Amino acid sequence: MTMKESIQKRKAEHIELCLTDQVMGENISSGLEKYRFLHHALPDLNFEEIEIGTSFLEKSISTPFLVSSMTGGAALAEAINRNLAVACEERGWAFGLGSTRAMVEDKAFRSSFQIRKYAPTIPVLANLGAVQLNEGFTVDECKRIMDWTEADGLVLHLNSIQEVIQQNGDTNFKDLLTKIEHLAKDLDVPVGAKEVGFGIDGEVAKSLVDAGLSFIDVAGAGGTSWSQVEKLRSKEKIKKIAAEAFSDWGNPTAFCLEDVLKEVPDTPLIASGGMKTGLDAAKSLAIGANLVGFARSILKEAVDSEEAILEWMEVRELELQMVMFGIGAKDINALKSTNRLVR
Amino acid sequence: MTMKESIQKRKAEHIELCLTDQVMGENISSGLEKYRFLHHALPDLNFEEIEIGTSFLEKSISTPFLVSSMTGGAALAEAINRNLAVACEERGWAFGLGSTRAMVEDKAFRSSFQIRKYAPTIPVLANLGAVQLNEGFTVDECKRIMDWTEADGLVLHLNSIQEVIQQNGDTNFKDLLTKIEHLAKDLDVPVGAKEVGFGIDGEVAKSLVDAGLSFIDVAGAGGTSWSQVEKLRSKEKIKKIAAEAFSDWGNPTAFCLEDVLKEVPDTPLIASGGMKTGLDAAKSLAIGANLVGFARSILKEAVDSEEAILEWMEVRELELQMVMFGIGAKDINALKSTNRLVR
Amino acid sequence: MTMKESIQKRKAEHIELCLTDQVMGENISSGLEKYRFLHHALPDLNFEEIEIGTSFLEKSISTPFLVSSMTGGAALAEAINRNLAVACEERGWAFGLGSTRAMVEDKAFRSSFQIRKYAPTIPVLANLGAVQLNEGFTVDECKRIMDWTEADGLVLHLNSIQEVIQQNGDTNFKDLLTKIEHLAKDLDVPVGAKEVGFGIDGEVAKSLVDAGLSFIDVAGAGGTSWSQVEKLRSKEKIKKIAAEAFSDWGNPTAFCLEDVLKEVPDTPLIASGGMKTGLDAAKSLAIGANLVGFARSILKEAVDSEEAILEWMEVRELELQMVMFGIGAKDINALKSTNRLVR
Amino acid sequence: MTMKESIQKRKAEHIELCLTDQVMGENISSGLEKYRFLHHALPDLNFEEIEIGTSFLEKSISTPFLVSSMTGGAALAEAINRNLAVACEERGWAFGLGSTRAMVEDKAFRSSFQIRKYAPTIPVLANLGAVQLNEGFTVDECKRIMDWTEADGLVLHLNSIQEVIQQNGDTNFKDLLTKIEHLAKDLDVPVGAKEVGFGIDGEVAKSLVDAGLSFIDVAGAGGTSWSQVEKLRSKEKIKKIAAEAFSDWGNPTAFCLEDVLKEVPDTPLIASGGMKTGLDAAKSLAIGANLVGFARSILKEAVDSEEAILEWMEVRELELQMVMFGIGAKDINALKSTNRLVR
Ligand SMILES: Cc1cc2nc3c(=O)[nH]c(=O)nc-3n(C[C@H](O)[C@H](O)[C@H](O)COP(=O)(O)O)c2cc1C
Ligand SMILES: Cc1cc2nc3c(=O)[nH]c(=O)nc-3n(C[C@H](O)[C@H](O)[C@H](O)COP(=O)(O)O)c2cc1C
Ligand SMILES: Cc1cc2nc3c(=O)[nH]c(=O)nc-3n(C[C@H](O)[C@H](O)[C@H](O)COP(=O)(O)O)c2cc1C
Ligand SMILES: Cc1cc2nc3c(=O)[nH]c(=O)nc-3n(C[C@H](O)[C@H](O)[C@H](O)COP(=O)(O)O)c2cc1C
Repeated sequence: MTMKESIQKRKAEHIELCLTDQVMGENISSGLEKYRFLHHALPDLNFEEIEIGTSFLEKSISTPFLVSSMTGGAALAEAINRNLAVACEERGWAFGLGSTRAMVEDKAFRSSFQIRKYAPTIPVLANLGAVQLNEGFTVDECKRIMDWTEADGLVLHLNSIQEVIQQNGDTNFKDLLTKIEHLAKDLDVPVGAKEVGFGIDGEVAKSLVDAGLSFIDVAGAGGTSWSQVEKLRSKEKIKKIAAEAFSDWGNPTAFCLEDVLKEVPDTPLIASGGMKTGLDAAKSLAIGANLVGFARSILKEAVDSEEAILEWMEVRELELQMVMFGIGAKDINALKSTNRLVR
Repeated sequence: MTMKESIQKRKAEHIELCLTDQVMGENISSGLEKYRFLHHALPDLNFEEIEIGTSFLEKSISTPFLVSSMTGGAALAEAINRNLAVACEERGWAFGLGSTRAMVEDKAFRSSFQIRKYAPTIPVLANLGAVQLNEGFTVDECKRIMDWTEADGLVLHLNSIQEVIQQNGDTNFKDLLTKIEHLAKDLDVPVGAKEVGFGIDGEVAKSLVDAGLSFIDVAGAGGTSWSQVEKLRSKEKIKKIAAEAFSDWGNPTAFCLEDVLKEVPDTPLIASGGMKTGLDAAKSLAIGANLVGFARSILKEAVDSEEAILEWMEVRELELQMVMFGIGAKDINALKSTNRLVR
Repeated sequence: MTMKESIQKRKAEHIELCLTDQVMGENISSGLEKYRFLHHALPDLNFEEIEIGTSFLEKSISTPFLVSSMTGGAALAEAINRNLAVACEERGWAFGLGSTRAMVEDKAFRSSFQIRKYAPTIPVLANLGAVQLNEGFTVDECKRIMDWTEADGLVLHLNSIQEVIQQNGDTNFKDLLTKIEHLAKDLDVPVGAKEVGFGIDGEVAKSLVDAGLSFIDVAGAGGTSWSQVEKLRSKEKIKKIAAEAFSDWGNPTAFCLEDVLKEVPDTPLIASGGMKTGLDAAKSLAIGANLVGFARSILKEAVDSEEAILEWMEVRELELQMVMFGIGAKDINALKSTNRLVR
Repeated sequence: MTMKESIQKRKAEHIELCLTDQVMGENISSGLEKYRFLHHALPDLNFEEIEIGTSFLEKSISTPFLVSSMTGGAALAEAINRNLAVACEERGWAFGLGSTRAMVEDKAFRSSFQIRKYAPTIPVLANLGAVQLNEGFTVDECKRIMDWTEADGLVLHLNSIQEVIQQNGDTNFKDLLTKIEHLAKDLDVPVGAKEVGFGIDGEVAKSLVDAGLSFIDVAGAGGTSWSQVEKLRSKEKIKKIAAEAFSDWGNPTAFCLEDVLKEVPDTPLIASGGMKTGLDAAKSLAIGANLVGFARSILKEAVDSEEAILEWMEVRELELQMVMFGIGAKDINALKSTNRLVR
């Protein structure tokens, strides 16, 4: 198998497995279920006039929603990314590309990430595993990615445990913070960081912001668990069993939000990890997030069609609007400062 | 379908669906189960002499119970209302009519609400969606309703979320409070407010009382959920799915009671939402309510016959008396000031 | 049916129903499960030398155990009482007779309560519904009961809720405390009080002790529920349904013990209600009880044979000894003052 | 049956029963599940360089793991001990022999404990029931055991409740502490103590350390329960039933660790009882243990083959390394002082 084939195979397996529920963490939840909204029986609002628009990376968008980084690479990924990009543009969602490392490694992968033509106005994020900075990935290569994707920012994903379980994973995370600092300085777009489902807490967020990052996506526990995904993929018996012990690993999303807000209250914050509904999103925004990211929840629709995505998006937006009507919040600012979120 | 037919159809569907358990909120309860009575092993009482009579809207009644607003309109509703009215009169329960808006809209609906002849002495409440005040409903029309129904008071229902999910619902709740204030001033009967199952909390209750309302019926969560009812009725896919996220929405009844009592301790307070037994009722009264309303719990009997209702009522009264015997409370005042309700 | 037949029928039904699990309270427990003993890994004890003897009503007994009041009356009851009395004498358990009211009402019932010949040395308690003092039962009749039974004390049971559900129950509990006070003064044996499964709390215990009673048996919730028993027996539909609401009624045994000890720390205290094992008993003694009563747990064996009872008793005693070994308590006093009972 | 046969039979039954899940305590857990690690998204570590070596009884070992005392005696036990010893040596685990009392009682049993030839470098512990010191076992006999086994230390097991249930168990624990003190003084190897699954708490640990013991193995509740094992083996009906009441007896392992650390923070501490994974082990080390012991979890592999054990060990080590990577701890000292263990 060439490297190209092996990358394609891995990406295809990720998508296929993530279409099943086996990849969910077990005995762990986002923690959002511990929050409730206090219903306001007499909202001083016309439902039709509720506003859910916001802005991210200095661009206005019609919703506070993001499709989290998922895929890229040939074939299936190309269709998925196009479907998502078109739908995001139409409804005003921000869009995160999957890891763009493949672009550099093989020209054939490039086109699947070049979705700016479908999504001219919305914030788009390029994506790279931070550990690549220890594996020879250069600032110049990052710059090329930004050129090719015409993205508004770059998000580095931190996925230590996944790399350990994954065959031939890159597990040298030593001194990465310094390299992240240099990259943030040298790149002229905003750079952020995300986990992939085990969550960034306050301490780590602070160190990243101190190193110059512009935004944090907590990508906490409660949804897709990458030890579960790699457990299912692994053919090494010892890793397969060891991964099992991590089925409830990770920092729940709600905890991450609270903890990060304590440390870096002024840094743009993306809530993700286990988001299912507009109600989850509303809770996250009321806790203090600026944007809410959905990954696996939208995968089925993304594989299916643009129409399926659009319908799914409309439901999430309606849920958010209904929550806002239910608590009497006329816009996202009002939601973010509500006193009607209780534990 | 004429408007008349469509109203009839909606009412019929509401009744039909509410006869099934699918309309219950999920993963939410009234909160009354968190309270317990401390049994008093030696009550200084003759069980036969326990008194459960009280008064509401300046009328004495033999029980602290209310049949909550449910229906009205032609056919089935007419029989239901007659059955309930006769039984309420016989056992001394207060009676709430369903939304009387239909009376104004079509003469044919009128008779079903004119039950004063069956219930000459008990408190009767007319009912109207507060949002109608934004849809052109006038004070004069309210006065006509009071004349036609010969009711002792008018209760405005607040049902924001239901209106959103319901097809062509009235969702402009803007400035309603001002209109409610005018209505309360101009009408010469007491005006109150109720939710329909998501609950009125202290803040909202205070604003309503400040606007001149005379009583509050919390109609909290734990029983019938109107997002569930409308989810089942809806033919719009997007609303149907969005409604699902609200299956545990609302302020639990017990919470509402505590919260409202903190804000407006002197306003007559009706506990309702999820009431099943006289034990639930006793807890509500001991928390501080003046009257306890039952809606869906009595629907089956109401559809069935006057006799079924009477038997059901007798059970609820006996339960209440037994609780009072069990804690040594000789009358409703003693129950309301008991120190034997614990959490 | 003569009164005699009806009493016999009732007693027989009680026994029969209590042999099934349907009479257990639902969603309620004794509360003892919230306590744990802290294991002591190196007890300074020879297991053979552990002492479980104690004393009650000025008699020494080999165990801190009591068979709670259950039955009396002809036929089956006679055999049960004889079996229990013989076994109690053999193993040094105290013995409580069932309600001895029947002795006065019909001569034919008398012999079943006259078990002193089988149990010459142990404490024996006669038993009477306190409410009978309002139904014409006199001090003289009580004296006669004491003569006939040769019992060491009289325990009055308080069973308000049972009386309400029971057909033709005696439900006038008015002014009973005064009558209890007179009885305690006039009778020259110790008089105590017990519930029948809904528990006596601190406030009631205090009033009873102030009225002159010598001991309290809490008979709390967590085991047999007499609203459940009478629900099953009842043929009156309204009572049958109302009784259902009381399936979790009552003060849990552990709560009663704590609460009574706060109010009357120096009054001999019997723990009962839901006792199953010597571990339950050990917890109750460590909380502060002086004696531990078992009713329904031993009914099957009591109906069966003396041998079955003896074996059952031996198990309970071994369990108690093992707990004492496990925490290093050499006798009942050490158990009562252990610091190894934790919540 | 000769004593030799009866010992062999008992040991064989223990192994056989412990291969089933029936020997687990019920409704009780180690308490470790209440702890969680806070994921560190950006560990400053190269996974390959994580170090899990430590030392015990002045010997360096490659892991902080111990195979807890299990068996010894002829046949099956001989194979088990050899398999375990070889594997422990290969992977650098400490090794605890099962009770070496049999060595003294019959020459035939001796060889199964003489595993030093297979495990020349690792810490090996000889094992004896402390109660034997009350049954005539002398210091000289202990010395002989140390000679024969060439072990680095002797661990005395405390198993009071097991001895009560076991037929002809030794249940005189009186004055044992004094004898333990003498033994510790007279023996020139370190002597420690362990329970067998009900746990040593702080108070007992303190008394043992004051008596001169060098280390404590808590052997707490949450895994194998020896009242359950002996319940299954027992042929005495009364003991069989009484044992049932002890199915949730014991001090959970996590509690023991915390409690012992409060009393004797400087004494080497072994965490055991219910250990299943390297994640359990990591939590125990982070709480404060120095070594982590596994008994029943490895029994199946021990009976099977050296290869099975080796593979099982590798998984546990990988789990530990992954936890350390996940929280950014580069070695056991860093793990022990982490602030990322939360409740
Ligand atoms: C199929 C799939 C592929 C993913 N690929 C990437 C990726 O390339 N880069 C990345 O940062 N995260 C990736 N993720 C992680 C998501 O961005 C997200 O952080 C994680 O799935 C948790 O969110 P969820 O619970 O909503 O799925 C992927 C997730 C899925 C389901
Ligand atoms: C069939 C049905 C019809 C109802 N119609 C009305 C109505 O017209 N006006 C109103 O204020 N509430 C209406 N309600 C709401 C009830 O008054 C009550 O607030 C709600 O059902 C919660 O109480 P429950 O849990 O006891 O059912 C209706 C309820 C039911 C079950
Ligand atoms: C069959 C049966 C008959 C009983 N009869 C009496 C009685 O005559 N007098 C009394 O005070 N309690 C009576 N009780 C109540 C018991 O004494 C006891 O208080 C109650 O059953 C709670 O204890 P338990 O949970 O161990 O059953 C009876 C209980 C049973 C099971
Ligand atoms: C088959 C078997 C035999 C055992 N034999 C001994 C023994 O001889 N001496 C001893 O101190 N503990 C003995 N134990 C107890 C263990 O050392 C350990 O303390 C206990 O099983 C709790 O740990 P676990 O939950 O990991 O099994 C034995 C355990 C098992 C499963």
